[in-house]
Amino acid sequence: MITSTQNPRIKHLLLLQQKSSLRREEGLFVVEGRREVEHCLAAGFRIRTAFVCEEISPLPAPPLGECYIPVSPNVYERIAYRGGTEGIVAEVEARQIRLADLRLSASPLIVVLESVEKPGNLGAVLRSADAAGADAVVVCDPLTDLFNPNLIRSSIGAAFTVPCVACTSDECIAFFRERGIRILTAQLQDSRLYYDTPMTGPTAIVMGTEATGLTDQWRRAADAHIRIPMLGRLDSLNVSVSAAILLFEAVRQRQIQ
Amino acid sequence: MITSTQNPRIKHLLLLQQKSSLRREEGLFVVEGRREVEHCLAAGFRIRTAFVCEEISPLPAPPLGECYIPVSPNVYERIAYRGGTEGIVAEVEARQIRLADLRLSASPLIVVLESVEKPGNLGAVLRSADAAGADAVVVCDPLTDLFNPNLIRSSIGAAFTVPCVACTSDECIAFFRERGIRILTAQLQDSRLYYDTPMTGPTAIVMGTEATGLTDQWRRAADAHIRIPMLGRLDSLNVSVSAAILLFEAVRQRQIQ
Repeated sequence: MITSTQNPRIKHLLLLQQKSSLRREEGLFVVEGRREVEHCLAAGFRIRTAFVCEEISPLPAPPLGECYIPVSPNVYERIAYRGGTEGIVAEVEARQIRLADLRLSASPLIVVLESVEKPGNLGAVLRSADAAGADAVVVCDPLTDLFNPNLIRSSIGAAFTVPCVACTSDECIAFFRERGIRILTAQLQDSRLYYDTPMTGPTAIVMGTEATGLTDQWRRAADAHIRIPMLGRLDSLNVSVSAAILLFEAVRQRQIQ
Repeated sequence: MITSTQNPRIKHLLLLQQKSSLRREEGLFVVEGRREVEHCLAAGFRIRTAFVCEEISPLPAPPLGECYIPVSPNVYERIAYRGGTEGIVAEVEARQIRLADLRLSASPLIVVLESVEKPGNLGAVLRSADAAGADAVVVCDPLTDLFNPNLIRSSIGAAFTVPCVACTSDECIAFFRERGIRILTAQLQDSRLYYDTPMTGPTAIVMGTEATGLTDQWRRAADAHIRIPMLGRLDSLNVSVSAAILLFEAVRQRQIQ
């Protein structure tokens, strides 16, 4: 059992949470929480090391085999972000998914985010995408790595249940054209109401950043421009909320078809 | 100009951000950001004191009159939460709105949250409610005060644009019955899909906490039980996301009617 916060394996874990360069170099990222680790295993990710504090969580851990390392409560408190209610923090092997790897359904539903700035927002979009049964989330020209701890946390496991691809906008647009996937861009100007837009066929919903909106490249690539009516005084919605409204309109149209 | 972080007015402001008991006692709360202060003034709230750092934001401040106090950058840095990009933090007089004070539209659309735990979630729900043009948000048996700084921040101004009432569940149910407002409770069991439920008439959408769901009192009071289909592996959505999906279904039904 590890009982010192100065243990090299604990120091390594803390560095991995802080440094995206180390995550990239070692191909590892950090997952906290029992359900999150279960989703991670169910999705076929490989756990390198799982630090478990049995004093905190007496439940049986998911099957972890060789990689299981017990830690004392003081060590767990140092490595846990959520204040020690979960009892498990794991180092997991990263897996890059490419567009070509995606196994799409007959009528895919895909969310595209153009250079999302906040990892927490991307995590929340993944959660909305999971709920709506979306095929994938694509992040074009990302400014954050897909294994950022805030992303993993805010997704509450959806980072493992929904395939998430990083690629360039060029690659993504070409992919959609090849596969006959209609591109719907969310934008206020020159757009029609989202619920007047058919989404029963293969559909990609593309959203820009909250600060600057979509680039011209995506606006030009669009098959239709759609908007959520803003009926109050404010001028924007959180990106995960917008994604959910648009995705669930597709769900509605597909189920009542 | 205030140049010391030890100034009593600055100390008072910091205490007001930290202590809900002081907010209640003095009937004051704290608003940060230029747009937020503008929404606050537009909604008729009275500003008691506005601390402005002109070095940070050279834009003309909203008309603040007597209550305007310039502060130096070091003081502003101490009082600002968002790292000093806005240049204004204000103490504002709280206003309690009661159910009887609400001016409802011909076919009201209201969101009810039962004892929401996280102030940030309530702020995000207010933002969704503003976008959907909802008449009001009602919080029953609240565990947080409606002027919590995290709530105000996460609402990005919607705390002022959408009337927000705190009351008991009994009062709220009686109010809806009197006014002929249909009660739709969001729950997974014994429910039908939300988009199969008419929402064009006077409608209240009621949501429980993420942890424990709705109480029996609300389930029994419901005219219909509705659910958002969960098509992925996770079992819940963020409450502000659920609120937005349900509210915008009402928007859709009302606009295409």
